Amino acid sequence: MPAVRSRRADENTPPDVLSALTSMLGNRVSTSPTVREQHGQDASYLPPYPPDAVAFPENATEVAAIVALCHDHGVPLIAFGTGTSCEGHVAALHGGICLDMSRMDAIGPVSAADMTCVVQPGVTRKKLNAHLRDCGLFFPVDPGADASIGGMISTRASGTNAVRYGTMKDHVVSLDVVLADGTPLRTSSSARKSSAGYNLTQLLVGAEGTLGVIVSATLRLHPIPEAVETLMISFPVHTGAIQCAIEIMSAGIPVARIEYLDDVQIRAIEAYSNLGLTPGDTLIVECSGDPAGVSRQTAWITEIAAEHAPLQIHAARGPEERARIWQARHDAWRAALALRPGAKGIPTDSCVPISRLAEAITLAKQDCAELDLTAPICSHVGDGNFHFCVVFDPDDPTEREKVDELIQRLSRRAIALGGTITGEHGIGYGKRAYLAEEHGAAGVRVMAAIKRVLDPRNILNPGKIVDAAEMPAFE
Amino acid sequence: MPAVRSRRADENTPPDVLSALTSMLGNRVSTSPTVREQHGQDASYLPPYPPDAVAFPENATEVAAIVALCHDHGVPLIAFGTGTSCEGHVAALHGGICLDMSRMDAIGPVSAADMTCVVQPGVTRKKLNAHLRDCGLFFPVDPGADASIGGMISTRASGTNAVRYGTMKDHVVSLDVVLADGTPLRTSSSARKSSAGYNLTQLLVGAEGTLGVIVSATLRLHPIPEAVETLMISFPVHTGAIQCAIEIMSAGIPVARIEYLDDVQIRAIEAYSNLGLTPGDTLIVECSGDPAGVSRQTAWITEIAAEHAPLQIHAARGPEERARIWQARHDAWRAALALRPGAKGIPTDSCVPISRLAEAITLAKQDCAELDLTAPICSHVGDGNFHFCVVFDPDDPTEREKVDELIQRLSRRAIALGGTITGEHGIGYGKRAYLAEEHGAAGVRVMAAIKRVLDPRNILNPGKIVDAAEMPAFE
Repeated sequence: MPAVRSRRADENTPPDVLSALTSMLGNRVSTSPTVREQHGQDASYLPPYPPDAVAFPENATEVAAIVALCHDHGVPLIAFGTGTSCEGHVAALHGGICLDMSRMDAIGPVSAADMTCVVQPGVTRKKLNAHLRDCGLFFPVDPGADASIGGMISTRASGTNAVRYGTMKDHVVSLDVVLADGTPLRTSSSARKSSAGYNLTQLLVGAEGTLGVIVSATLRLHPIPEAVETLMISFPVHTGAIQCAIEIMSAGIPVARIEYLDDVQIRAIEAYSNLGLTPGDTLIVECSGDPAGVSRQTAWITEIAAEHAPLQIHAARGPEERARIWQARHDAWRAALALRPGAKGIPTDSCVPISRLAEAITLAKQDCAELDLTAPICSHVGDGNFHFCVVFDPDDPTEREKVDELIQRLSRRAIALGGTITGEHGIGYGKRAYLAEEHGAAGVRVMAAIKRVLDPRNILNPGKIVDAAEMPAFE
Repeated sequence: MPAVRSRRADENTPPDVLSALTSMLGNRVSTSPTVREQHGQDASYLPPYPPDAVAFPENATEVAAIVALCHDHGVPLIAFGTGTSCEGHVAALHGGICLDMSRMDAIGPVSAADMTCVVQPGVTRKKLNAHLRDCGLFFPVDPGADASIGGMISTRASGTNAVRYGTMKDHVVSLDVVLADGTPLRTSSSARKSSAGYNLTQLLVGAEGTLGVIVSATLRLHPIPEAVETLMISFPVHTGAIQCAIEIMSAGIPVARIEYLDDVQIRAIEAYSNLGLTPGDTLIVECSGDPAGVSRQTAWITEIAAEHAPLQIHAARGPEERARIWQARHDAWRAALALRPGAKGIPTDSCVPISRLAEAITLAKQDCAELDLTAPICSHVGDGNFHFCVVFDPDDPTEREKVDELIQRLSRRAIALGGTITGEHGIGYGKRAYLAEEHGAAGVRVMAAIKRVLDPRNILNPGKIVDAAEMPAFE
């Protein structure tokens, strides 16, 4: 767990910057300790770093003016969505101003022909989907939390639907951003595809606010599927669940979602929600599309599952039961925490090629047993992505050390198996230590070079992903 | 049409670099005028620029050594696949060494579980698909020409299947590249998704060899669909074809391909191939997947088409007829050239949001009529992407001026309609003049900054996409 860093005196935001901000935004700037504290910590258990002030801009012009002001004075700027990131992304490590984007939550015109819509970054995914419902369209990326679109873009978020629809990477057509010196940039046109130069859109997606501040996004949408069916398939502990999932994927069945929950997680959910779940390692598999195709797919999945000696194959009876199943899945985190009242949770995030997933999970469970950690698993198994919810006592230094040890083992093993230290949560400052282990010195050097050239004063969310100042230049 | 540029004397490759190359590669370096000329021109009608020598590396170590040698001496390096690019991508504008990658054509292990395979950049797409057939998998990106994977990655190529499967952007899991100073870099892990830092993979995809030399790629594959059906739907000239295509897309039907050919193109193909085609504006729509789904989709498409007063809806009778239809589509270019024996062709490339496609094509046809140019249209209509094959006499300066005028109008109109000057061909040096009109000064400045910081000596395919030396730095 990264140690708490002490602020240098020269990192305090100069009073004239604060007064310029107040002249610009009036009471939409706050220096109240409560507001600052709320904005210095995310959903992780990393040490909080409150910003010096929180600004609430209402449009792109205000954002550009704030960025230009901070650029002139070398003051850090951290864009903030809903604070549901998991690696300390919003921590004001070097002080500065937090840009709370929640007031920029307009949803622009929806184009049914293009299957796109324009949104401001503060729109949350649930608000967006409520807006889209009447058009017969939906935005599929679902990281669990009701995160903001700007935050989801910045962490390259994904979730249960990614196996079918892809991640945020696949859903951003174009971005309007403000660069570090206040210059506005549109990253690309609104065409579905382009070969016009470097892919600036994908450079900004997943950049965690370190290369520009997003002020608008054109998103790709999908038609709401006509039919949906959901299967819950239970297996005896440590047997065929993962292999069954691999076979479903290899068969080319276009599942809409395929989630794995281990026996520990199922028992935690059952204790929390009392749904009558069958104990055991469990797959939740959902198919969607035209009714005939969905029936054929679920029949095929049932056939494959039957070869893996399941305890039970249960088809959800209608939308209410389906909603209860997904609610239970989304309650996994709270259910895990309830295993040990008063404890805190850390969500780990590893992603490996699916061919190595069974091995990765088996070894990771051995680690948890060795370290005597309570840690149920949820996995977006179709993507090879899995999370432990590690339940621990933050005031016990021995437990904290064990958690650190687990994260180290998970990160290094993911890399050794050809995977990544983070499938969807991002680097923030929590995982910076492992970035070079994954990308090598050359990869981090390229990232630092890009950061340095686009933000030479290092004002945009400094200290996240890479520390540009530490890396040698190219010659 | 960009004017022929004269080489400066100091741009000739120094003799000691040529002799060092020969010591390294023996007879796998050529300075023969014929070989050099073959490597200085692509499929476009842009002026050729032969390199000073052509090297034929056989592995990544040789590539790294050649790049390091050129870096030390400030000599340009242009990676070459099959020479089928369309905007002068391979032209040695500033002299230097061409790296012909055709000997690096190994196909590594195919992972059925991960649906990936590793290939060297010189593998062509047809060779790859022949290799994959026995595994029940295929690589869907099909730009028409039997291009190399390295070239397709570098131009962010797509083609007829992109509407269903996406472009090269969506099919590269990871790249091994050699950076400008000879350093090897792996752009990402082999996981299906990642949030670990800036997206270096997407920075290299579409970079036209200006940021690194690709030596290996991990590609995403798909299962060969079980069933395929193809419809040819003919409409009276200038009526419902495009609108019908938009409605098919808006209905959310997951078509595998949806192509539009205008009446001029259909008549050219009929004259060339004598297939008994119905004259008129034509859609070719293909569905693939499980048989029940495919039947349902084609029935739905037939219903939608019937509402647009078609002349004929014809379903291909089996795989032979389907193959003939697609052969005719792929012969569109040769058929267009045959309209005027001795003439040359220029393929234009515009892409707009599909909601603006009918307007874009109507106005573009008016341009051709006004300019008195023969120019059949093919369109990947589901992506909003369309090509004219402009047939002209390159020795007639008036015709060349008209072609330039058409390309200017098409480019500016695509931008005005929210689209791009190139959907899949790239910028090369043919479209550099329009890049800033699409991306604005800020976009080009960001691209130039990235180019400059990753290739400070400007040796990697210099003069393509952006001229880094021309742009101001960030401060």
